[in-house]
Amino acid sequence: MRAWPQGQGAHPRAGQITRVGAKRRRVRVRGDSGRTSRNAGAGMHLKIVGSAAGGGFPQWNCNYRLSRAARAGTAGVEARTQSSLAASADGVAWVLFNASPDIRQQIAATPELQPRADGPLRSSPIGAVVLTNADVDHVAGLLSLRERQPFAIYATEQVLAVLAANPIFNVLDPAIVPRRRLQQGGTLDIADAEGRPTGITVESFAVPGKIALYLETSSRPDADFSSDSGDTIGVRISDGGRSAYYIPGCAGIDAALRARLAGAACLLFDGTLYTDDEMIVAGVGQKTGRRMGHLSISGERGAMAGLSGLDIGRRVFVHINNTNPVLDTNSPEHAAVRAAGWEIAHDGMEIEL
Amino acid sequence: MRAWPQGQGAHPRAGQITRVGAKRRRVRVRGDSGRTSRNAGAGMHLKIVGSAAGGGFPQWNCNYRLSRAARAGTAGVEARTQSSLAASADGVAWVLFNASPDIRQQIAATPELQPRADGPLRSSPIGAVVLTNADVDHVAGLLSLRERQPFAIYATEQVLAVLAANPIFNVLDPAIVPRRRLQQGGTLDIADAEGRPTGITVESFAVPGKIALYLETSSRPDADFSSDSGDTIGVRISDGGRSAYYIPGCAGIDAALRARLAGAACLLFDGTLYTDDEMIVAGVGQKTGRRMGHLSISGERGAMAGLSGLDIGRRVFVHINNTNPVLDTNSPEHAAVRAAGWEIAHDGMEIEL
Repeated sequence: MRAWPQGQGAHPRAGQITRVGAKRRRVRVRGDSGRTSRNAGAGMHLKIVGSAAGGGFPQWNCNYRLSRAARAGTAGVEARTQSSLAASADGVAWVLFNASPDIRQQIAATPELQPRADGPLRSSPIGAVVLTNADVDHVAGLLSLRERQPFAIYATEQVLAVLAANPIFNVLDPAIVPRRRLQQGGTLDIADAEGRPTGITVESFAVPGKIALYLETSSRPDADFSSDSGDTIGVRISDGGRSAYYIPGCAGIDAALRARLAGAACLLFDGTLYTDDEMIVAGVGQKTGRRMGHLSISGERGAMAGLSGLDIGRRVFVHINNTNPVLDTNSPEHAAVRAAGWEIAHDGMEIEL
Repeated sequence: MRAWPQGQGAHPRAGQITRVGAKRRRVRVRGDSGRTSRNAGAGMHLKIVGSAAGGGFPQWNCNYRLSRAARAGTAGVEARTQSSLAASADGVAWVLFNASPDIRQQIAATPELQPRADGPLRSSPIGAVVLTNADVDHVAGLLSLRERQPFAIYATEQVLAVLAANPIFNVLDPAIVPRRRLQQGGTLDIADAEGRPTGITVESFAVPGKIALYLETSSRPDADFSSDSGDTIGVRISDGGRSAYYIPGCAGIDAALRARLAGAACLLFDGTLYTDDEMIVAGVGQKTGRRMGHLSISGERGAMAGLSGLDIGRRVFVHINNTNPVLDTNSPEHAAVRAAGWEIAHDGMEIEL
């Protein structure tokens, strides 16, 4: 674990968690304004700010029955923005996991992520953004976090290389928005641009996945761009005590992943597709889930089967594609998922740990 | 003007305008379904899908009184998405002018831009996107128009070079989404990906502007990145008969621009700032409007003064920054603009010509 920056221990900022002595204790510090967050209190706060896969729900050019139902406002079929999660140790400082293209709309819908009423003229409670891969639906939102606002970006070497290869991301001046490497295997205190800890720590680990779509050198449905060397990662998010696993993209479940997740208090997991050939059957695409780096929810090799029998407190499907029948709460697939002990994420869903 | 692709004349597609003989006539063709657009009818249709400048209104990290009022839902202070305009000759096929980062939200709010009820499983009425510069708030939305949906991109050589320099835009496979050069001075029929005319023609011309922010090599407020060689263009949009000028970014008004705009039926013009030093006075920035490539609405060198006395049918300010007091309909600045014969754009504003 990285040490806290010198001098922070003596004068913790508002809402910061301090650790005293050998036994972990929580000391909440109120800001000068005396304001405390609505959510302030013991425990880690998670808020799913976007629960759909790339393209969102409805998707701009999709005329499949689910996107149509969402546009029509059909009961039980709720629209969703693209994949993003916010985490906070104190309900005041927040860390975003992935920056979706919908981030402006998402911040507008999430008071916790807006400037504080007593804050400076330009300010944000978002101290850092952690990227789990370089997919457009996870990085394009960085382009909306401009305006010379300091925050820190954390990503693997591969993802940082993608940002570096696209000069448009220089709208975020690295002198104001530092880019920090997320190493696999270790645990890292996530700090803001100035190095102040957010109270959130992250342990990252590679999961079976694939490289980003726009890095592919062939569009053939049968081409193989699978990768398990850090192009796609999962993260364990913690406030030092409680923790949750966030794995929005995963191509398969192996014994190592099962061992890692056993005993988890909370798991937010890749729920892109219900069946591997769902997009082909729906007539909207030529690729299987496996080709896209996503296992399915159902089936022998799917997430429900692969993670059954494990002691996991809450298990929630996130990153849900617009073809997935679980998006309709009246569907048998939705019922099957709920019966198996899983929840289906929706935008604005809050989880307190 | 480009000729129509061979064979199109004989079997025009639904809603297409055909021209017969020397005298322009309109022949509306109904689709197989018999559906015609709500807007179908003589005349050109313009819809302002986003009326704010870069950052939108409210801006994610802005705590200035106007962004706060918009978040609070204050009467007379309406939230706005980032700059984009849609144009159609027939109310069926649409051309987008600029692709803002908010494009997914904008399409969700604009039925005309959604797949037709009787359309294929993947489809869009957006046949082409015309880019007037390479600013993030005008190009980032391209990243949300993925999913292998054919449409055409039109931009100047400079803007196309920016897309080429950022491989992330390869999510739009050029084999599916062709990139076409918009030459200055000429008039071009805007066609869709397959070369079918949309019914919209565009004449483009350079206006005083500047290069995109992320292409700047210095962030100093006094640096000069002004350009009048095509980094920023204005366009005259026409359906072959009626026309409108769209100039969302402009650093100044000279005699040539006044001469061009004289007699225009409609002008949508850069309304970024009310006063040149507005962002400095508001305490949210260090740059003048001039430094950012935008003249102001007021003042001796501003748009109202510079375009006064010209015979222009409707004059509408677009691309409005979150510091601009005209965003409050109860402000004296809003009243002054209205008294001078100008309108203030809002999201969803429709103009029929």
